[in-house]
Amino acid sequence: MLTAVTRSSVPVSRADVAARTGLTKATVSTQADRLLRARLIVEGEPVARVGPGRPAAGLSLCGDRVAAIGLEIGVDHLTGCVRDLRGAVRHRAVAVGDHRDRQPAEVVRAAADLVAGLRRDAVSDGLSIAGVGVGVPGLVDTLTGQVLLAPNLGWRRLEIGRPLSAAGDGVGVVVENEATLSALAEMGYPTSRSEPDVDTDAGFVVVSGEVGIGAGVVMDGELVRGRHGWSGELGHVTVDAGGDACGCGARGCLEVFAGQEAILLAAGRAEVVPTVRDLGSARAVDALGELVRAAEAGEGTALAALSRAGTALGVALSSAVNMLDVDAVVLGGIYARLAPWVVPQVERELSVRVLRSRLRPVRVVVSRIGPDAAMLGAAALVLRDVLSAPVPWLVS
Amino acid sequence: MLTAVTRSSVPVSRADVAARTGLTKATVSTQADRLLRARLIVEGEPVARVGPGRPAAGLSLCGDRVAAIGLEIGVDHLTGCVRDLRGAVRHRAVAVGDHRDRQPAEVVRAAADLVAGLRRDAVSDGLSIAGVGVGVPGLVDTLTGQVLLAPNLGWRRLEIGRPLSAAGDGVGVVVENEATLSALAEMGYPTSRSEPDVDTDAGFVVVSGEVGIGAGVVMDGELVRGRHGWSGELGHVTVDAGGDACGCGARGCLEVFAGQEAILLAAGRAEVVPTVRDLGSARAVDALGELVRAAEAGEGTALAALSRAGTALGVALSSAVNMLDVDAVVLGGIYARLAPWVVPQVERELSVRVLRSRLRPVRVVVSRIGPDAAMLGAAALVLRDVLSAPVPWLVS
Repeated sequence: MLTAVTRSSVPVSRADVAARTGLTKATVSTQADRLLRARLIVEGEPVARVGPGRPAAGLSLCGDRVAAIGLEIGVDHLTGCVRDLRGAVRHRAVAVGDHRDRQPAEVVRAAADLVAGLRRDAVSDGLSIAGVGVGVPGLVDTLTGQVLLAPNLGWRRLEIGRPLSAAGDGVGVVVENEATLSALAEMGYPTSRSEPDVDTDAGFVVVSGEVGIGAGVVMDGELVRGRHGWSGELGHVTVDAGGDACGCGARGCLEVFAGQEAILLAAGRAEVVPTVRDLGSARAVDALGELVRAAEAGEGTALAALSRAGTALGVALSSAVNMLDVDAVVLGGIYARLAPWVVPQVERELSVRVLRSRLRPVRVVVSRIGPDAAMLGAAALVLRDVLSAPVPWLVS
Repeated sequence: MLTAVTRSSVPVSRADVAARTGLTKATVSTQADRLLRARLIVEGEPVARVGPGRPAAGLSLCGDRVAAIGLEIGVDHLTGCVRDLRGAVRHRAVAVGDHRDRQPAEVVRAAADLVAGLRRDAVSDGLSIAGVGVGVPGLVDTLTGQVLLAPNLGWRRLEIGRPLSAAGDGVGVVVENEATLSALAEMGYPTSRSEPDVDTDAGFVVVSGEVGIGAGVVMDGELVRGRHGWSGELGHVTVDAGGDACGCGARGCLEVFAGQEAILLAAGRAEVVPTVRDLGSARAVDALGELVRAAEAGEGTALAALSRAGTALGVALSSAVNMLDVDAVVLGGIYARLAPWVVPQVERELSVRVLRSRLRPVRVVVSRIGPDAAMLGAAALVLRDVLSAPVPWLVS
């Protein structure tokens, strides 16, 4: 019942819900009343309807009671938000700093502080936190809340579920790979956008890149997490088996060509502070922004570095699509921002290297979500559980 | 009910079937009687049982009524069989010849002749043919029975379903990628082997290579066919973006390093007739057999060619596993035969290049099925449908 409300971008009437779910109108009315009392849905203005009959009141998700905290632990930043059941971001918090220079415990403490602050913000709005979703650039164990291996952070077997749960006053914490969460965000669920950019049934690979590069895979409308949740390690797909050494221990991985710092290095910008985002702080040096401006000005080194990165990204994505047979790739993370320079190279490699391109070209879509995708997906992971199993929230 | 019988490697009693399926004993007995009358199952000697009670008669699949024709269209051979419902191969037929030198229509005619001959063999055994499964090294449209693109055969948009159906006296024909069928065979369903070599739930990639290289992907016990059934194009996963030109139009694909002819060429055996199998014919030159003997004799060129192929195969498989997170790779096709020389390289590359190898090594399994995997899988595809929907066979 809640799912029928969620899937609609406009308020739906009880009759519509009954038609979509196959439930009787009486059952829908009873359930709607319980969800209304629990403030998981609201009843709005009458909905215009096609055909005869009087206008019916529209049901939509309610953003006033339940929310989730979404957190992304990046290599050079922590970004968190409070996202309500409607999908709206109610509060944001950011902490910048290169985590490679710090003890893991110190970073976890900073993350816990962020969560505690966001929880206070939520409580002051009268929101109940259903849980904390955390995105990490590495391999995780979702069951134990451990980060098993995050090469770019230098983390190995680090427990983060418990300290973050404590910071959230004991709520559940779910830890997931950040690229998988970006894919979830791209699926648009739960969403305030009217339509996702790609047909989720068609299958797609979402690239999520900053210092490292990850990917989320969606097939038949479902996340493909792999045997242990470790799928989508696009950053370590080989571009050139004899290439330069990668931080992972291998050679010629995609990250060597197209990771944020590899691009800046190739563009002769080794000295700039590698921080991706415009943080609204005067001190934040936006290295990627400088690169974009140099490329716009036609600076040769910048253009060459971006072309090399785009080509390598296209090679790795071609290997991925040859194995997976998906209809689209979605460029998120830094690649969304670098799209004017990398999309042509990616399209060219996909057209040359992917066998199925001879029959059906692979679509290249630039993500409109931006660098917040993993954080939004982290909150969505928690909210999705509330929507699919709302019973615990029905008792006030 | 049939599935419970299929899944057991030994005959099962009616009581066991009831326990496994959750059906009542009365229902199982009624269904068993119908299946016995239709000769889809047989009742054998009493089964030894654990615990009290008298020995019960064991039910197992019957091989005397229903069978399927499995056909593989390779680049240099046609191989077909009649496989009965128990999984036993009752008849075989082979036709050798390089199809690249012939008109597609001529090859399809030869395949139709093979099917017609196998059908006659089946009929003379009193078997009914449930359908024809066909494996092709390329991208297919299973709905229309078209081969859409098979670069190594030089085929494009070739209808093969209809002529093969006619040859089989109007039976249904299902066309599928040969590597996908090899993966199905590796899943051991239906099987006469007691256990598959790999845990199908754990996920694995099956490599099926001869002139071209393909792969079948199994995750959560299911074939992963991709959006259009075109997944598993391992032969066109990039090993070295700047490498030699591939027949597909790209550069540095796996096939350039590890396809059968690439290996023979690198081993200084360009002149030998590229036929993989020991066909029992004095005229058949077993080029791969010669290579194996040279490697066994420690010939440097042969060893270098195999080492290069094994390394490239390991690189491509590493990219695949990084994206898919499967627990094992299964080496079939020519790689099963070349295992002593390629397995160490594949294991080394997987251990260095796959991020999850730091946490859980990827198993390398050598297929025991041999070069018949695609043909056996083709028949299995048809038999699987009979087992899951036996109703049409219940009316005699």
